[in-house]
Amino acid sequence: MNTQPKPATRAARSGGRAARRAARAAPVADHLRSVYPGMEGGTLKPLTQDDMERIHQSALTALETIGLADAPQSGIDYLTNAGCILGSDGRIRFPRALVEDTIAKANRSVTLFSRDGKTDLELSGNRVHYGTAGAAVSMVDVHGREYRDSTVQDLHDAARIADSLNNIHFLQRPMICRDIPDNREMDLNSIYATTSGTTKHVGVSFTEPGFVDDAIEMLHIIAGGEDKWRDRPFVSNTNCFVVPPMKFATESCEVMEKCIIGGMPVLLLSAGMAGATAPSTIAGAIVQACAECLAGLVYVNAVKPGAPAIFGTWPFGLDLRTGSMSVGSGEQALLSAGCAQMHKFYGIPGGAAAGASDSKLPDMQAGWEQMCSAVMAGLSGLNMVYEAAGMHASLLGFCHESLILSDDLIGQALRCVRGIEVSDETMAVDQIRETCIGGPGHYLGTSQTLSRMQVDYVYPSLGDRSSPKEWEEKEKPDLVQRATARKEKILSTRSAARFDAETDKILRTKFNIHLPS
Amino acid sequence: MNTQPKPATRAARSGGRAARRAARAAPVADHLRSVYPGMEGGTLKPLTQDDMERIHQSALTALETIGLADAPQSGIDYLTNAGCILGSDGRIRFPRALVEDTIAKANRSVTLFSRDGKTDLELSGNRVHYGTAGAAVSMVDVHGREYRDSTVQDLHDAARIADSLNNIHFLQRPMICRDIPDNREMDLNSIYATTSGTTKHVGVSFTEPGFVDDAIEMLHIIAGGEDKWRDRPFVSNTNCFVVPPMKFATESCEVMEKCIIGGMPVLLLSAGMAGATAPSTIAGAIVQACAECLAGLVYVNAVKPGAPAIFGTWPFGLDLRTGSMSVGSGEQALLSAGCAQMHKFYGIPGGAAAGASDSKLPDMQAGWEQMCSAVMAGLSGLNMVYEAAGMHASLLGFCHESLILSDDLIGQALRCVRGIEVSDETMAVDQIRETCIGGPGHYLGTSQTLSRMQVDYVYPSLGDRSSPKEWEEKEKPDLVQRATARKEKILSTRSAARFDAETDKILRTKFNIHLPS
Repeated sequence: MNTQPKPATRAARSGGRAARRAARAAPVADHLRSVYPGMEGGTLKPLTQDDMERIHQSALTALETIGLADAPQSGIDYLTNAGCILGSDGRIRFPRALVEDTIAKANRSVTLFSRDGKTDLELSGNRVHYGTAGAAVSMVDVHGREYRDSTVQDLHDAARIADSLNNIHFLQRPMICRDIPDNREMDLNSIYATTSGTTKHVGVSFTEPGFVDDAIEMLHIIAGGEDKWRDRPFVSNTNCFVVPPMKFATESCEVMEKCIIGGMPVLLLSAGMAGATAPSTIAGAIVQACAECLAGLVYVNAVKPGAPAIFGTWPFGLDLRTGSMSVGSGEQALLSAGCAQMHKFYGIPGGAAAGASDSKLPDMQAGWEQMCSAVMAGLSGLNMVYEAAGMHASLLGFCHESLILSDDLIGQALRCVRGIEVSDETMAVDQIRETCIGGPGHYLGTSQTLSRMQVDYVYPSLGDRSSPKEWEEKEKPDLVQRATARKEKILSTRSAARFDAETDKILRTKFNIHLPS
Repeated sequence: MNTQPKPATRAARSGGRAARRAARAAPVADHLRSVYPGMEGGTLKPLTQDDMERIHQSALTALETIGLADAPQSGIDYLTNAGCILGSDGRIRFPRALVEDTIAKANRSVTLFSRDGKTDLELSGNRVHYGTAGAAVSMVDVHGREYRDSTVQDLHDAARIADSLNNIHFLQRPMICRDIPDNREMDLNSIYATTSGTTKHVGVSFTEPGFVDDAIEMLHIIAGGEDKWRDRPFVSNTNCFVVPPMKFATESCEVMEKCIIGGMPVLLLSAGMAGATAPSTIAGAIVQACAECLAGLVYVNAVKPGAPAIFGTWPFGLDLRTGSMSVGSGEQALLSAGCAQMHKFYGIPGGAAAGASDSKLPDMQAGWEQMCSAVMAGLSGLNMVYEAAGMHASLLGFCHESLILSDDLIGQALRCVRGIEVSDETMAVDQIRETCIGGPGHYLGTSQTLSRMQVDYVYPSLGDRSSPKEWEEKEKPDLVQRATARKEKILSTRSAARFDAETDKILRTKFNIHLPS
């Protein structure tokens, strides 16, 4: 007996292929798309309620008894004014009640604005968004199998590609412009290259506090005025405000203060590495990340109560055999999923890293690694899934083809996040009865199948589902080559996100823009 | 500011590399392995308790009011004796109370024995096992990018490879021996090819009821006598006892009866395709699969109360655009995860399909598709994850290289299944304190890191975590080529599972064995 179900195509020919063709010819309205930004996860819970309470209490103990070193003087002033205690060892300690009060008063939601208002992200509860992030230093040349320095043009191209992909919801700068040696120019050109490539929300970093004023000026120009910028800040600051374990990153804290004052939302990013700069245990790395981000939350609210901040617990994995970073592991998936639960425990919008690979190329390893943490992050209801597209070589390399393929991968993950709708209609007992008793004996042409085929199902755009025979007839398309073809098509058009000529002229007059106009 | 954490290797050189080398040189005892068969999942719950109750009630309604057609006369006798009602339309309907009684009395656990007693599988609760299954008709030649007919030698090789992989826990026959045109010989040779290649638990199918007696005779010989076979049946019957929607597969039911009497555990396999032979909605496909498997459970217990049976709800996905099967989708992952929850709802050991791909080759698509459903099946606590390794082209093709790579993929999924241990030790507040205050400022050489590096972490065997520089120095190893090298190494040795010469001689005298001795 053959366990292989009979191919459906035979039945299809007699029962509904024409009807399905007609159904899929009709365009799907945006609100009927089967997946969309902000779908609610939360069905995956690796931590119990008791686990989360214990982790929180441990984080409070760490803050109260260990505290954080190396705050800048301005930070010491803000924090001690808020009720923190500066020890004779230079560490700032956080009374439990102060931290609990801050959690109680902090924002329950953050809006990350898009430049055109069409793709704003509402961060709250279990709402899930996927996007890029990182600081890759290389680009992956998939056909030459080479790593080469990443450039500002690569960054702009990544923004343009991301702008065209439905399942990439934001563009945090994923790579360094290594062709711009001056750090100030690099930071400013990173803003230009990203915001002129996509109208989706953008995240950027600043190397020094002294660069923030210029950046804010640039953003005022792009927005069309300070009021417009402050009304809808479409760029946020990715801020590594701590150097784990339990030390403030002095200069980054100063950057953070300036961003808060400039109206820029802040991602409070704690990127410990389990086994190196955080405990090797998953629970320990989460405790430390929560402690550090809680410290950041107190800091932000001491600078400006209610300022928008994202709880950026980003613990990373390590390969303990070699001591080198690893982001594609099951341990990584658990680290990020566990953090997502802690964000919900606190009721504070949060993000973590998932969907990156250790593999150097977009191969099978990359696929399984990216999906493992990407789908688990979504299922756990992570608000912001960072590094979710294009990241290879344990965050050292970025790949445009992989970014494009991630649109399929993340679309699939989002379908899992959406979950299973259970209702009388979806349980379909009446439909089963009508099909079996006096009916056609199959469901291919039922009105229910036809009406739901677009709204229930996600179809890959480059992923191939053809039979071996069809695949041979199509001359065995290569997945990565198809991604390259799509990249070339996207980049052959003009950027829809580019600035108007007047704005562009002002920007190019004021700043040394490296991208050709 | 750079969001890229500093590479750990620098710190590693000064703090613990030698100690870590020493720690990993020590062999890890089996009971300390970080992942193992039967780890407990259950942290993923796409269905609420209310959802499950509603699905169950819908399944009962379907059984009571629609029932199943096409039972063989023997089945009609068994079922009507048990309390089912044969309608004038030839359909057998199941009173709700009979089904509820059967669920209450059915086995809460099933043991699937290995031939050598070393890898028995205990199916109960949320215990998770991964293995092969299916009826692929082709082998994937990865280097020629070709599909060719699968043979008995391919099947034997798959068994030998699976025998050597820690994370492949059982070998259900994954492909058809297309070089054996006679169905009786094919079925018998499938038993020989699998059981002589692995001592792990094996699953096989039978084309006709008349072949079962010969198979049982063969198994008595392999076991060393009927009593030994009946004591530890190391081969189970994969039985497609239904032709969805809601029809018994007449001949397969007769096979099932014979297997039950012969002491062989039965996998009650309902393989509907959502949108073709089952409703297109995930909930509807689960309702129908549960109804069909509950009918099978009543049937099995009517033949022999308490006979070991696995609740095989295997709904598959369909690409509704084309009407062809699709197993690599997010919808598929939800179908199988939802079924796993229903098994727990009933408290009955169950299995479903996950970890298969629609891609024709072991490429990035294959990786993301395989991981998506594989990890979600495990997280949902599925007892038997079938089709979890080597399956391509929507179950039409089997690939030895992919089987080998699945060992890494499933190892990673199992790490996620294991979850997050939360205790005072793992939360590590004392370790954080010692590290930060007067300590080295990193965790690389702590006794906790060293003592847990093997028992907490899963390391891939072929997955590559090297830096781009190291990768270049290694001449950019290709993942699939490395899998081929491993395959050749495994197959160059003699099978450890082969039969002793005497047994082999008896088998070859009694049956036409196609594999060379």
